[in-house]
Amino acid sequence: MNAEIITQQLEQVRQKAPLVHNITNFVVMNNTANALLALGASPVMAHAVNEVTDMVNIAGALVINMGTLSEHWVEAMLAAGKQAKVNGTPVVFDPVGVGATPYRTEVAQKIIDVCQPSVIRGNGSEIMALLNSNTKTKGVDSTASSESAVDSAKELAGQTGAVVVISGSTDYITDGKEVLEVKNGDTMMTKVTGMGCTATAVIGAFVAAEKDCLKATFAAMAVMSIAGELAVKKSAGPGSLQMNFLDTIYQLSAADIENTFAE
Amino acid sequence: MNAEIITQQLEQVRQKAPLVHNITNFVVMNNTANALLALGASPVMAHAVNEVTDMVNIAGALVINMGTLSEHWVEAMLAAGKQAKVNGTPVVFDPVGVGATPYRTEVAQKIIDVCQPSVIRGNGSEIMALLNSNTKTKGVDSTASSESAVDSAKELAGQTGAVVVISGSTDYITDGKEVLEVKNGDTMMTKVTGMGCTATAVIGAFVAAEKDCLKATFAAMAVMSIAGELAVKKSAGPGSLQMNFLDTIYQLSAADIENTFAE
Amino acid sequence: MNAEIITQQLEQVRQKAPLVHNITNFVVMNNTANALLALGASPVMAHAVNEVTDMVNIAGALVINMGTLSEHWVEAMLAAGKQAKVNGTPVVFDPVGVGATPYRTEVAQKIIDVCQPSVIRGNGSEIMALLNSNTKTKGVDSTASSESAVDSAKELAGQTGAVVVISGSTDYITDGKEVLEVKNGDTMMTKVTGMGCTATAVIGAFVAAEKDCLKATFAAMAVMSIAGELAVKKSAGPGSLQMNFLDTIYQLSAADIENTFAE
Repeated sequence: MNAEIITQQLEQVRQKAPLVHNITNFVVMNNTANALLALGASPVMAHAVNEVTDMVNIAGALVINMGTLSEHWVEAMLAAGKQAKVNGTPVVFDPVGVGATPYRTEVAQKIIDVCQPSVIRGNGSEIMALLNSNTKTKGVDSTASSESAVDSAKELAGQTGAVVVISGSTDYITDGKEVLEVKNGDTMMTKVTGMGCTATAVIGAFVAAEKDCLKATFAAMAVMSIAGELAVKKSAGPGSLQMNFLDTIYQLSAADIENTFAE
Repeated sequence: MNAEIITQQLEQVRQKAPLVHNITNFVVMNNTANALLALGASPVMAHAVNEVTDMVNIAGALVINMGTLSEHWVEAMLAAGKQAKVNGTPVVFDPVGVGATPYRTEVAQKIIDVCQPSVIRGNGSEIMALLNSNTKTKGVDSTASSESAVDSAKELAGQTGAVVVISGSTDYITDGKEVLEVKNGDTMMTKVTGMGCTATAVIGAFVAAEKDCLKATFAAMAVMSIAGELAVKKSAGPGSLQMNFLDTIYQLSAADIENTFAE
Repeated sequence: MNAEIITQQLEQVRQKAPLVHNITNFVVMNNTANALLALGASPVMAHAVNEVTDMVNIAGALVINMGTLSEHWVEAMLAAGKQAKVNGTPVVFDPVGVGATPYRTEVAQKIIDVCQPSVIRGNGSEIMALLNSNTKTKGVDSTASSESAVDSAKELAGQTGAVVVISGSTDYITDGKEVLEVKNGDTMMTKVTGMGCTATAVIGAFVAAEKDCLKATFAAMAVMSIAGELAVKKSAGPGSLQMNFLDTIYQLSAADIENTFAE
């Protein structure tokens, strides 16, 4: 994988402007919608059981994020995920905080079983907790390095058939055989809430536009991390980073990608 | 209508600081509350069936936005809308994504029937979908120009008695007879989520302060589009636009309006 | 209390990075999560009855904010609050809009009775409404000065055993005997939604890191008001204030505190 592929995939998203259906958490909805718009995609948020299957029917990808769970929402996630499988629409799953409570661990397992996601993205702790229900996480922040979770990610990919992503100082993207790396980004990104959730939504846009899930997911993570790294350079703190990140995604050029990408 | 009327209406909102009760969607709550505060109004968000009628009783306007629907919320919207009619409090309705799913189309119709809104604001697709349930929309983004929906808007205004607004590169505001135009704004505004929803909330503040709904709605749309246009000039992308928009609304002067308004 | 104590308390939060469990409103979740991250704490938002007690078990403090109430949320607040009392985990309560509707007044009373908060923070109207159910508030904005509520705050502290905070142009922090003051801040902060809710969340981080609730709460309010005051100086309006506030909290130094603190 290289900078040219990243640029080509980004151009594809901008041209196709796919509709991405998000069933996500209350904290990040605004950010993920804005990131998808800045990217050139078309976000929609809908969670009523009365309409999720209809919305999935017109969407290019379904993003399921369990950041702020509750019963009706889980019901909608499962219904939407089932319909996505029927339609062959890719499902991207973000197991936010799995391992922090038994309820999260149980729901994450059910979503994987029922929705058979094409991509699963989490931090080191979350990916490890998906494999081993004894792994404890501290709320929604990772207590494990991304490096330490690579073996778990490969095993999880093998078990589920999903492309698995670990976000961290190095991002790892694996289909269980190949392991791709993205070394862009900046630790200040961990001080903006929902950057991980935004990465998951961005993956949704890329897999909606490209059938090769590993390539699309790799490009999505590279775009996230490159844009974050460039935005940090203009930012005095996490407040301005949040703003500059959207501007940077909106303007991201082939030259930016070429000059910044590090694998 | 002219710049002087816009300024006079804005001053009236700033002086009266009306309480605007919003039952709106999860994605935009923060933005619309901030826009109302920057404008000089006082926003409140409340959606529990246990309290919406009490909140309507102290509010100057009720804004109903169906961006992220579910059953309990629809129940609260209908209860609040009924109470607003009893009190003679204006209801402003935003039929987000109507036409995207049968559920949205059904709920929108029910809200119009029960709450008899004073103002309905949507994009071209949404206004057309309200009249013709066969119109398809792509999620929450418009697939029709605002121009193409003018006849639908006039007919909808005639049928419902509401002032109908179509947002777009030109905004149209009609009571079924007169059609007013606002030609300000910028396409970058479509890359910030919830700009339409914010326009609806801003209309809420203006109709809370002014009995003449057509005049108030026209002025609200002009303030939105002028502030957006001025904010885009200072913005490198949708991230900074979101920030500059709030600053611009907060500072908007008679001279800004005089120098920028285009009809 | 003095600038050195404020700095020492802030350093303690940064070093301990406590997990703060928030059951809060839809409008401000993003802002409060970002403020906690910028401060160096670790926020988690969770509201499902199925998991709130498990989340409380790993948290350093529980923040309950009733800005956007509904039945399931109240149930979760009470369950989480009970568990916090069992664990000896401090509960910080924000009675948003109490007095605006009978439902809010009833829920606020129930939360105080069941959860026995360590700290209660509100604006002048809210603190007065907690003592006198006949006090009317205008939605969620205060109609009373902070000064006028000091006697009510002292009485409420005496009745409940909580440290009580009144936010306003002067902030008052009292345990019923001592009354501490913070005179920093700026009126532009009232034009950004959720600044009060953010103060409550910030108190959560400080009481998670420090057993002396009065000292911790005083320092939290001082950090909020100092950061707000410094951020306003760089801001053209409430949009840029929201951004600069997060950057300022992130960077806040001992010298900033020393040079700015006013009591």
